[in-house]
Amino acid sequence: MSAPATFLDKLFDQGLLYDSGVDGLYGRSAVFEDVISRFEQLALNLGKDEISEAMVFPPGMPVPDFKTSGYMKNFPQLAGTVHSFCGNDHDHMGLIQCMAAGEDWTANQKITDIALTPAACYPLYPILARRGKLPEEGAYVALQSYCFRHEPSKEPTRMQMFRQREYVRVGTQEQTIAFRETWKQRGVEIMELLQLPHEVDVANDPFFGRAGRMMGVSQREQELKFEMLVPVNDGAGPTACMSFNYHMDNFGKAWGITLADGTPAHTACVGFGLERLALALFRHHGLDTAQWPEGVRKALWG
Amino acid sequence: MSAPATFLDKLFDQGLLYDSGVDGLYGRSAVFEDVISRFEQLALNLGKDEISEAMVFPPGMPVPDFKTSGYMKNFPQLAGTVHSFCGNDHDHMGLIQCMAAGEDWTANQKITDIALTPAACYPLYPILARRGKLPEEGAYVALQSYCFRHEPSKEPTRMQMFRQREYVRVGTQEQTIAFRETWKQRGVEIMELLQLPHEVDVANDPFFGRAGRMMGVSQREQELKFEMLVPVNDGAGPTACMSFNYHMDNFGKAWGITLADGTPAHTACVGFGLERLALALFRHHGLDTAQWPEGVRKALWG
Repeated sequence: MSAPATFLDKLFDQGLLYDSGVDGLYGRSAVFEDVISRFEQLALNLGKDEISEAMVFPPGMPVPDFKTSGYMKNFPQLAGTVHSFCGNDHDHMGLIQCMAAGEDWTANQKITDIALTPAACYPLYPILARRGKLPEEGAYVALQSYCFRHEPSKEPTRMQMFRQREYVRVGTQEQTIAFRETWKQRGVEIMELLQLPHEVDVANDPFFGRAGRMMGVSQREQELKFEMLVPVNDGAGPTACMSFNYHMDNFGKAWGITLADGTPAHTACVGFGLERLALALFRHHGLDTAQWPEGVRKALWG
Repeated sequence: MSAPATFLDKLFDQGLLYDSGVDGLYGRSAVFEDVISRFEQLALNLGKDEISEAMVFPPGMPVPDFKTSGYMKNFPQLAGTVHSFCGNDHDHMGLIQCMAAGEDWTANQKITDIALTPAACYPLYPILARRGKLPEEGAYVALQSYCFRHEPSKEPTRMQMFRQREYVRVGTQEQTIAFRETWKQRGVEIMELLQLPHEVDVANDPFFGRAGRMMGVSQREQELKFEMLVPVNDGAGPTACMSFNYHMDNFGKAWGITLADGTPAHTACVGFGLERLALALFRHHGLDTAQWPEGVRKALWG
């Protein structure tokens, strides 16, 4: 007797995702993409009167800015750097021979200027810093990017390459905390509109190593991170489909983003895990979007 | 006297692209993205009655399939592999110290299972191969993917991370050659609709090294690759905004894709360089889309 099909198996069988042979790396069908773009439109409409700017980033960011972010300090296990062949004809012959012999062929792969973006808002901060002091009203930016996290998994919600849509608020402590509270409420409204079971809870990022555990505890105690949790995977705990983050003035200090009065800016962001939200919808409303509840279809397709 | 602003400067000044500090790595504005998605819709409509399937891929593909593609043999200088930290707490302390001292910190960055996708159709072939023999009618797939090529440049059309939309035909020699001819014609029709100066010419890929030069010559002689050329950049030659490629049965053999009769499949693809097409439109019709010719606006926005 074969094991019952997992949720991931069903997504492959239905042709919603395409298996690549690498866990967490999947092609998306046209139907899956349509759900994502409809959700993006819904989320974009909610903030359209407030944003100062909208940007879409490519999947990579400059290595110097990536270093400034502290990501290699806090989450080195998840980070991805882009390496390219830097050799001559002779080195290339060696590479081909190693590859043919099944040996390590990566000796001449050297780091480029590009790291894969770990969170959609990271490329924004250096852009704001280069503009000089923020205006009184701060910045309120809508973003989207492919992100990378090196954590191969059979849980369909834990992809290695996935998209985040974000709103980012940069300004005073009051502005950024108010922003985060507004979006926690809007997040709940979105989940009710989409008829998905949900719960908002305090959370922490997966900081690396022994020292990292203390940082996670501190992040929870200060209530810097909240997540919108939805049961999606077989058996496992619920999945964070949105997150609501207040970074205090950490990023303002790291990148040198300053308020009109010259003090470091505070930042906050709300992130929507686009693939995770699509998967939550398929999990709870079925694999055929035509059969989804009328209210959900109306919210997405109008 | 300062030098006259380049096309790239103007794109930054107008807020259509955002500079990251790395050549060929730019954020896109909402307006830039809208032009891209409108062009995609135009291109998708042209093939909608013919396709058997539509897929969107993440920006990476499995390393084993990447090796099978021969890309490291032919274009090692352009390829990007994804590397992650594979160490313990102690190694991590070393990494942080190297980074702080401005030394090389990449000793523990090891290759993952993922390479950045060099062309949108590469992740498709292994998926087709795993399905077994093709049906009589072959396959006709619409695709989209972010692609990576390591070629930093000040030419705005030569981005390191960019998107390709493709149609791929997999089948007999007759099917694939007929497909390519149809799309060469449709490519011209699209350029006329968009009122862009254009020329179709035979071309070759930038094969690496001395041996590579011979391959380029052979590819031209066999007329395997045509490009849709449009003047876009300051001074430099015209830019390939579309390409029309016939791979013979090379990919069919490499990945083991077989026809119903058991022989290796032939493949052909048409690729649209989405950022390049958007840049061509901005170059020729101006930086304000509201001022574009009425026929162009109608073709894109309906």
